[in-house]
Amino acid sequence: MKHARKRTAAKKRPNTPIRPGPEIRPGAGKRPAPRHRDRNEEKFHGLRACEALFAQRPGDIVRVYVSEQRKRQFAPLLEYCVRERKGFQVVGQENLERLTGSIHHEGIAILARQIRRWTFADLLGAIERGDLEGPILHLDGVQNPHNLGSILRTAAHFGVAAITGAEAALPPLSPAAVRVAEGAAERVPVCDLGDPPADLRRLKKAGYRVATSSSHRGEPLYSATLGKKLVLVLGGEGEGVSRGIEALADLRLLIPGTGAVESLNVSVACGILLGEVWRRQITG
Amino acid sequence: MKHARKRTAAKKRPNTPIRPGPEIRPGAGKRPAPRHRDRNEEKFHGLRACEALFAQRPGDIVRVYVSEQRKRQFAPLLEYCVRERKGFQVVGQENLERLTGSIHHEGIAILARQIRRWTFADLLGAIERGDLEGPILHLDGVQNPHNLGSILRTAAHFGVAAITGAEAALPPLSPAAVRVAEGAAERVPVCDLGDPPADLRRLKKAGYRVATSSSHRGEPLYSATLGKKLVLVLGGEGEGVSRGIEALADLRLLIPGTGAVESLNVSVACGILLGEVWRRQITG
Repeated sequence: MKHARKRTAAKKRPNTPIRPGPEIRPGAGKRPAPRHRDRNEEKFHGLRACEALFAQRPGDIVRVYVSEQRKRQFAPLLEYCVRERKGFQVVGQENLERLTGSIHHEGIAILARQIRRWTFADLLGAIERGDLEGPILHLDGVQNPHNLGSILRTAAHFGVAAITGAEAALPPLSPAAVRVAEGAAERVPVCDLGDPPADLRRLKKAGYRVATSSSHRGEPLYSATLGKKLVLVLGGEGEGVSRGIEALADLRLLIPGTGAVESLNVSVACGILLGEVWRRQITG
Repeated sequence: MKHARKRTAAKKRPNTPIRPGPEIRPGAGKRPAPRHRDRNEEKFHGLRACEALFAQRPGDIVRVYVSEQRKRQFAPLLEYCVRERKGFQVVGQENLERLTGSIHHEGIAILARQIRRWTFADLLGAIERGDLEGPILHLDGVQNPHNLGSILRTAAHFGVAAITGAEAALPPLSPAAVRVAEGAAERVPVCDLGDPPADLRRLKKAGYRVATSSSHRGEPLYSATLGKKLVLVLGGEGEGVSRGIEALADLRLLIPGTGAVESLNVSVACGILLGEVWRRQITG
């Protein structure tokens, strides 16, 4: 990353010889000069999140911050940093807290490019190539980043193909959401939809059935026909599923229960729905 | 409450006539003199939590704080306050934030006695009387009050008989946990166990089977025999189920999935397990 940007900068001044200055030469343990924050980079943190980042997209890593206690556990990552001339720093707990803005860093933080989100064209392409397995999860107004993190984790566990949502409404894959997702944010693609109702109608044309859910009315989950190509819609807490989406649903699922509470937490409902889809897959 | 305490205080000075002074006479809209915080009282808040508190144990209410916007919705509660000579105050959003220490008050707060927790003797008594229906949920190291709140909500939805946990380890039913539980904290008893392994063995003698769960090993949930009298154990995030409890489990359940993530969020796992228990009950 740094080299690439240096080169780009150098290209603009053709007379300047291309050579990285000593202050930006990356290397193990060396402290680089302060750099401006790149808006496409984030300080991801947390054990599982950082393990998954390194496993899935090491090329996106810019710099690593590790506590003394985690050095050994992350030896392969640090060796990679040395080999690929990416900086790393051994830092204290307090510095990690300050760097990440969180007490939940678990002794490791990675400055890296943001997770690439899918466009609807990416999703359609994957469907057309037959690359997409498992249900699609559509989030309709789920805004809490912790809920997104927990939903990602559940989605990875139950083999969800992709998580979709309105481009403007889907929470960012912030370091907090990525940490709560415990590595799952690197595994399940998050896809921004420009026009959710139109895009979901397009998915219906591709053979998907759209299912909403509720704790109060609808076809009981455990006896409903779910089918293989399913878009499960989760509404936001409070407002529930929006009218435009509700109108195009093929199926309205009820999560049966005592009726004693108004609704379930959205990530809990997600787990119950995906668990049942998984149960059908394995029990036929 | 206030009357009772006044009387107690008066008893210590037998010559003082027993009459409540004007400053503590409760009444609608009147502002009482500042009172010392009673350790057995909490300021509960949030719409569903306050609705359930009023529905389940109105006698425990000490004082009500309501926003102008919620006055109409809570008219029966305010009428009750007038009738029972409990104070209420119409307060602004900022005051509610300050009073509750939360931005999630939803325009209503109730100062009330804490929710009464069960002892193991209460639980055994209910079992012996045949009053206890549904599975028991044992929390083994679940400490996050938000997880407790979400678990309570799911437990009420799926008719859990009681939630048990080690006396010292179970999180308090704090106003935050009670708010997240959306009324469920008033419906599902929380029972403190003095000695969880011994107490669970006592439940086994009463015919209960103890089941732990994991995302990695055990008998697949969807094909395991669950039975009617079940204690579902949920381990804390990170540490999982403690050895002493694991050793006495009759059943180790696996929540099947891709294996792509280390574990599920504990309240999500709780939803999946309880959903399956409910499914067996209704599908036989």
